[in-house]
This record gives sequence, structure tokens and C-alpha cells, in this order.
Amino acid sequence: MARSNGGDLVVAPRKVPQVLLLSLLPISLWLIVRALITPALPLPALFSSLGVSILAGIVVTYVIPPLGPNFVRAGLKGRDLLKPKNEEFVPESIGLVCAAVYIMTIILFIPFLFSEAFTAKVASHHLEGLAGGEFPIQKLAVYLAAVLSLLIATLLGFLDDIFDIRWRHKLPIPLIGSIPILMVYFAEQGNTDVVMPIPLRRFFGQIIHLGPLYYLYMALLSTFTTNSINILAGINGCEVSQAFIIALSVTLNDVLYLPWSFHIPVPFLGADFVIGGVYGAGLAHGSKELVERHLLSLYLLLPLIGVCAGFMFHNWYPARAFPGDTLCYLTGMAFAVVGIVGHFSKTLLLFFMPQIFNFILSCPQLFGLVPCPRHRVPNVDNLTLLLHPSEANKDQPFPENLSRLSVLVLKILSYLRLTKLTVNPTTGSITSCTNLTILNVLLLVFGPTREESLTRRLIAVQICGSILAFGIRYGLAGLVYDGDRR
Amino acid sequence: MARSNGGDLVVAPRKVPQVLLLSLLPISLWLIVRALITPALPLPALFSSLGVSILAGIVVTYVIPPLGPNFVRAGLKGRDLLKPKNEEFVPESIGLVCAAVYIMTIILFIPFLFSEAFTAKVASHHLEGLAGGEFPIQKLAVYLAAVLSLLIATLLGFLDDIFDIRWRHKLPIPLIGSIPILMVYFAEQGNTDVVMPIPLRRFFGQIIHLGPLYYLYMALLSTFTTNSINILAGINGCEVSQAFIIALSVTLNDVLYLPWSFHIPVPFLGADFVIGGVYGAGLAHGSKELVERHLLSLYLLLPLIGVCAGFMFHNWYPARAFPGDTLCYLTGMAFAVVGIVGHFSKTLLLFFMPQIFNFILSCPQLFGLVPCPRHRVPNVDNLTLLLHPSEANKDQPFPENLSRLSVLVLKILSYLRLTKLTVNPTTGSITSCTNLTILNVLLLVFGPTREESLTRRLIAVQICGSILAFGIRYGLAGLVYDGDRR
Repeated sequence: MARSNGGDLVVAPRKVPQVLLLSLLPISLWLIVRALITPALPLPALFSSLGVSILAGIVVTYVIPPLGPNFVRAGLKGRDLLKPKNEEFVPESIGLVCAAVYIMTIILFIPFLFSEAFTAKVASHHLEGLAGGEFPIQKLAVYLAAVLSLLIATLLGFLDDIFDIRWRHKLPIPLIGSIPILMVYFAEQGNTDVVMPIPLRRFFGQIIHLGPLYYLYMALLSTFTTNSINILAGINGCEVSQAFIIALSVTLNDVLYLPWSFHIPVPFLGADFVIGGVYGAGLAHGSKELVERHLLSLYLLLPLIGVCAGFMFHNWYPARAFPGDTLCYLTGMAFAVVGIVGHFSKTLLLFFMPQIFNFILSCPQLFGLVPCPRHRVPNVDNLTLLLHPSEANKDQPFPENLSRLSVLVLKILSYLRLTKLTVNPTTGSITSCTNLTILNVLLLVFGPTREESLTRRLIAVQICGSILAFGIRYGLAGLVYDGDRR
Repeated sequence: MARSNGGDLVVAPRKVPQVLLLSLLPISLWLIVRALITPALPLPALFSSLGVSILAGIVVTYVIPPLGPNFVRAGLKGRDLLKPKNEEFVPESIGLVCAAVYIMTIILFIPFLFSEAFTAKVASHHLEGLAGGEFPIQKLAVYLAAVLSLLIATLLGFLDDIFDIRWRHKLPIPLIGSIPILMVYFAEQGNTDVVMPIPLRRFFGQIIHLGPLYYLYMALLSTFTTNSINILAGINGCEVSQAFIIALSVTLNDVLYLPWSFHIPVPFLGADFVIGGVYGAGLAHGSKELVERHLLSLYLLLPLIGVCAGFMFHNWYPARAFPGDTLCYLTGMAFAVVGIVGHFSKTLLLFFMPQIFNFILSCPQLFGLVPCPRHRVPNVDNLTLLLHPSEANKDQPFPENLSRLSVLVLKILSYLRLTKLTVNPTTGSITSCTNLTILNVLLLVFGPTREESLTRRLIAVQICGSILAFGIRYGLAGLVYDGDRR
């Protein structure tokens, strides 16, 4: 099962089924090639994006097993704490592989992104709709800034893995990564106004000009998206599945804004099925700018979905590869970038509801109201393999006299079934509580379960969150906003 | 002298004199602030660039000592092979610190880069010369692509340090880093024609349209600039001093093209000295495009000079920090980027003459004609501390029968005093030769010397090369080219 490597036992990699390559590779190549063949499709770049995303997923799936031992040799390795026998090392920071493939993909995608401009230049005629005659250098600047932000986030995440930066020090790190994208937002003279919900307008007016504060908000957005995924971690497949479902949800939201005049190409028959209405359908209501923004979001998110899917194959229970902080930084920054350049940061945050819940729940521990051990992941029962909520007094005992505020917070959380208190029967004082994470809450509410099942519960919560988000965005928002606001 | 760190002895860092901070910090801050004060200077961004470059140098100088132990702890450490007692570990890959400071500097410089555009936007009037009313988004795209290429090179260099990629595998790595800058060159519809020297025109015509081959040439340029610095390595201060002098030379070349209507601000007196002629002086002959290109080159090279100077302080004999491949990748890519966006790649290569010489000299060993040991750096005599040329038969003995070509090559090189052969007196066959590097040649020609003196010799060679380059560029080129060609 394990093979030796310079003295270290390395976990055996998961075998990749050849059928995956045989079935997905032709599809992805066809999608890429189809975009280059005339008659041109209305949105050829979107088809290529889908193709390169599948290709990126295949590449990630196939390169992780051979690269794993190199990571272990370089000291990037970890033991799986939730397995009864954990003598074998699992390659750590494999998010770096995902990041490398992802960033190479989106860089090599640049010619496709501007294929319309190139075609227009060559053919000297304008395609219907999106293409202009001039090279869209502004679009290139935005795209390059996005790539730059993602690359900085990757580098910082990897540095975090290598140098093991302390929790408090690394909170502001994603801010650095957001600088390029904010610079371009500024250069674009991006909007910094916020439209107030109708009930609040009597107090604040219809529009608030936030100005520099809006940049602060966007910078903090990257900090939030990055760290919120990073603190909801610890069980196999946990980080990557959050990123995967959020990316899918944002993609679905983007698709709603497309013009929907898709020609579905039928390979080798030469026939095209036209689905949907005319250009100008969809939620974009004919706004080319909105379509462009959501297309850009799709070009950045589809490859992310690809690499996340490929990595999830190896990170699924029992994990053969760990993401490291690199994956959290990469995915977190990707969401922030997409939210900023797509101008839909509020909608984006709706898809982070489980993370927001987890963050708020964690606050008493993060900010010192309740003792916080180094690891807050659930405990495993080595006999039954069931996970149980972990206790907050693991590293140090609870202080004798908890402050009144701490006691109040813990009692409220306990009443809401978000934590379970251990009370000294003689003195009546709180001696411990379960750690304040959504994973422990899922174990408290639905009972102990095995690791892969807990990951599934978390995925279910994330999907429910997304459904709720769509309900709020397209249902409730109509009640407090006029027109189509995001 | 050394302090313990998790079991490893770490070399004591070099103490930074406080006078450095006290003298340079006010100058750099004044230069940055001056650019923001009215009356505006003609090229305010150049003054800010000088200011931030000095600041970057100060930061690098001050942060390397406290960061060193973290590198050793993360396994990024090396022993100094040319020191008699080398029990202490020297932090390795400190080029990462240089790269981080450098890239942060050029990203945070973006607002200064466009300060003219911002000022023009606010004041609604056009400055004389370079500033336009519209935001120069194309310039931003070029700059972002440059940053992206540099960041990719840094990441790849660091990965090389971490994973210790094999020599043959890492040759093409810089190609990846050059993709963004080539994409933008393409988007800009950059020139791909080469002007022939006059004597060759009868065969090839005046201009050759290289087309895609020109992109190949530019991609290979990055490979060359990166690897040629990387293989001229091994003694303290060697890599960084090459980069430092090449950067200074290119900077000097850039300055020749500036409009030279500098106002020298006199701090606190409020007076401005005007030096030089009207706008349009200098070698640019009034071409705004040429001035813009060389300004961009300056904005990228001045901070590089700053961080190289800061790092050299710690890398100088006896080295307290090693550059790692990261520094070679960063500096090599910086030169390639500057050559590409500034459209002066041929002039750039002139400043690489010592590296080209070293590369050509190394070819027989690199391509297997002559045995090549793992390390080709000179040997140290532990008693006298003098360096002597190292022998090529260190790792494995010479093959019994060297091919005729190998013997011919070695005899020619020996005749030119570029190597010293060891010949078996009975059979007359070559049993060894000194390794084919410029460092060994310098020891052969000028005799054994101490390590810091060899570094000085190399610096002298590099400076002579640059003087020769200026002679060729502005003297000889006039004989074979008409007009002002680069």
C-alpha cells in the first residue's frame, strides 16, 4: 500500500481510471477545436473555455499521482490525523499543482479570449453583438490583473505552507493579492456607489457614494473569501468541495446573464441546433457590458471547476493528497476577483452563507472569548471510525472564572444547539464546550458519523445555502430593491 | 558567531549600519513626495521610481537578517563549499525576499506610473509632452504583463529551489514566464521585422519579416538571460553582481534616450535647477514612443538595482545569504521583459557578452563532449584560502578514448589558454582538463586568488564588457546600419 521514499512512507496514490481520459479528452479537444472552425459560433470563446477547463481537470487528475512523492521529498507532507493508522505521509500543498495548471490554463486561454477581436481584425467585418473592430486592450488589462492577483495569492499561499505563517499574521495576506485587481478597477473608473435597499432609503438616501471605502470593502472581500474557506477545513475533501460548489453556483448565476443564442454543434454531422431566443435574451436584458462581465467570470470559473474536480478525485476520503493553504488562497482569490471584475460581490457573498455562519460561530474562539485549541477538527473514535465533536479544552483547561460575556455567549450557543457545554456538577461552572465550527455543529445536530459522510453533510449544507442564495437574490431582492440590482 | 535553530547552526547575519537608514531613507522619501508636489516635474514618475527603488533596497537590506532563520527552518539552507569550516548553514533562496520586495514595489508603483494620466484627468489640461488626457490602458496592460512574467519567473525559480529540478528539465522553464509578455506584444501588434546590416542586404534584402520566428526568438531570449546568469554561479556575490552591473548598463543606455529636460529640485529652498536642453533632446530624437519605452525600462530596472544592491550587502564575501535559483530567474526575466517591451533585445544581448562567452565556453561540457562534474566551481586551498581552477574529472574519470572532436576542441581551448589539460606522460592521452567556465579562465589567466578577489575580477570583466558593448552599439553599429537601429 505504501512505498518508501527517502525514509518516509508515502501513501499510495489513487489509480486514475483510463476511461476518464478516453471519454473526456475527445470532448474537450472537440470543444476547443470547434471554436476555431467556421461557421463561427456566437460565443466561440465560451466553448473553448469549456474545453480547456475539462482539459485542465484531466491534467490535474493525471499529474498529481506522479508529482506526489516530490512534494513529500521536499518536506511538503502531512499525516492524516483522522485515520486510526497514520504512519504514511500524505503529500501536502497539492493545491500548488492545481494553481499551476489553473494559471497556465487561463494564461494560455488569452488568445481564445480575444479570438473574436483577432477574427474581426482579419476578416475586417464585425460579428453580431460582442465583437468590436478594435483590439479590446482594456479587457486584456482586466484579465491580466486578474491573473496577477491569482498568481500572487498562489505564491502567498505556498509561502504560507512552506514557512507556516502564524494565524494572526496571515489574516491580511490576501489583501496584497487584491492590489492589482483594485488598481485596474480604479483605472477603469469602476463604480464605488452602493444602492440602498428601499426600506433604508429614508435614512441614507437612494445611493451612497462610498468612494475609497468601497476599495476597502473589495480588499476585505478577498480576505474574507480566502480565510473563510481556510478555517472551514480539517476533514478530507472539505476545502475543495466548498470551492467546487461555490464555483458551480456562481457559474450558474453567470449563465443566467448570457444571451442564450447558443448553437449546439453536433460533431461530425455538420448540423447546428439553435437553442434559446435571440441575442439580448437572459437576465442581461440586452446589456452588452453585463454579458461581458459574466462571460469573464465564466472564463475564470470554468477552469477552476475543472481543477477542483480533478483534485477532489485525489482529496476524497481517504485522502491521497492534501490541498494546503495554497488551494484556499487560490480559490478564495478567484472568487474575490470574479466578484470584483464582475461587479456582483453582494451576490457572491450570498453563496458564502455556510462560511459566513462558520465564521460568525467561530468568532468567540477566534477573538479569545472562549479558549481555542490549535486544531478544532472533530475527534475520531478509532474503533468505530465515527467522528465526534471535539472539545475546546484540549490544549489548555478552561479558565476558572469565565467572563460573564463568555458564559452568556456559550449559553446562547448551547441553547441554539450550536455547542454542547460540559458543566462541573458541583460548582456549576462551565469546564468545556465543543469547538465552535460548522463541522462540530453538524455532528451535534445529526449525530456522530464517519468522515466521508460528514463531508457529504457539509456539501449538502453548501448546496442548500446556494439554493437559498438564489431564492434571496431573485426572489427577496425584488422586494427591497427596484429594478435589477446586485 | 553562530546561533542554534532547531538543531541547525545558522550563520550570523551581517549587521546593517544604522547610518544607511538615516541617510538614504530621507532621500528616498523626498524623491517620492517631490513627485506629488506642484509645480510638477516633467517626468515626476521617474523621480518617484528612483525614490521607491532606494526604499526597496533599504527594505531588502533590513529584512534579510531577521528572515534568514525562517528559511533555514523551512529547509532552505546551504553550506558554503568554498569556506574551510562550513558547519554553519547559510540561508538559501533569499532571492525570494528580493523578488517579493521587487514585485511589491513595481505593483505599488502603478499609481505613480499613471500619475500624469490622473493629474491630467483631474486638472483637465495636458502636460507638455508625454501626458495624454485619456487613461493609457495599453501602457497598463504592458506593465501588468511584465509584472505577471516576473511573478511567474519568481514562482518557477522558487519551485526549482524547493523541488531541485534537474538541469536538463529546467532549461525551458523560463519560456513559460515569457508567455504573458509575448501575448501583449502580439496584442500590441509589435514589430516582428529585423533590419539587416548593410553588408548582408545584398543576400537577404533590407528587412526580413520573421513573423512567428520573432516570437520564438523573444521566448528564447528569456531562456538565455535566465540560464546564462544561473550557470555563471558558485562564488559569493557572483550572480547578484552580474545582474547589478547589467541592470546599471541597461539603465545608462535608457538614460541616453530621455528628453533630458530635468529640473533638479533643491529640497527646502524651493529653487529648481534646469539641466539639459529642451524636450526632444537625447538619442530619442523627439520620438515620444522611444522615450516611453525607455522610461518603462527604467521603472522596471531601477527597483531591480535597488534590491540587488540590498541583497549584495548580505551576499558579499563571506556570504550571509545565498540567492538560490529564484534570484537568477527574477533578474533574467526582468532583463528579457525589458528587452522585449523596450524593443532593444539586440542591445540588451550586448551587455551579456561575459555570459555569452561563458555559455559558449561551457558548451563542450553541457553537451557531453567533455565530462561534466556536478559542481564546476573553483577549488579552495584550505590553508592559503586561494582558489584554484577545478578539474573536470572530479566525479568520474575521463573516458579512455576521447572522441577526436573532443580532443580537437580541448586542444584549441588549451591553445587559447581557456583550459589547462592534464596529459598522461606515457600514453599522451588527455586525462583531465580544468572545467570550462569563465571563473576558471580568470584563475588560469591571472593566477590563483581569494574568493572575494575572484568576484571582483568577474565584476571588472562585466564592466569592461559593458564599455565594449556601448562602443559596439554607438560606434560600430553606425558602420553596418544606417539611421538609428537597435
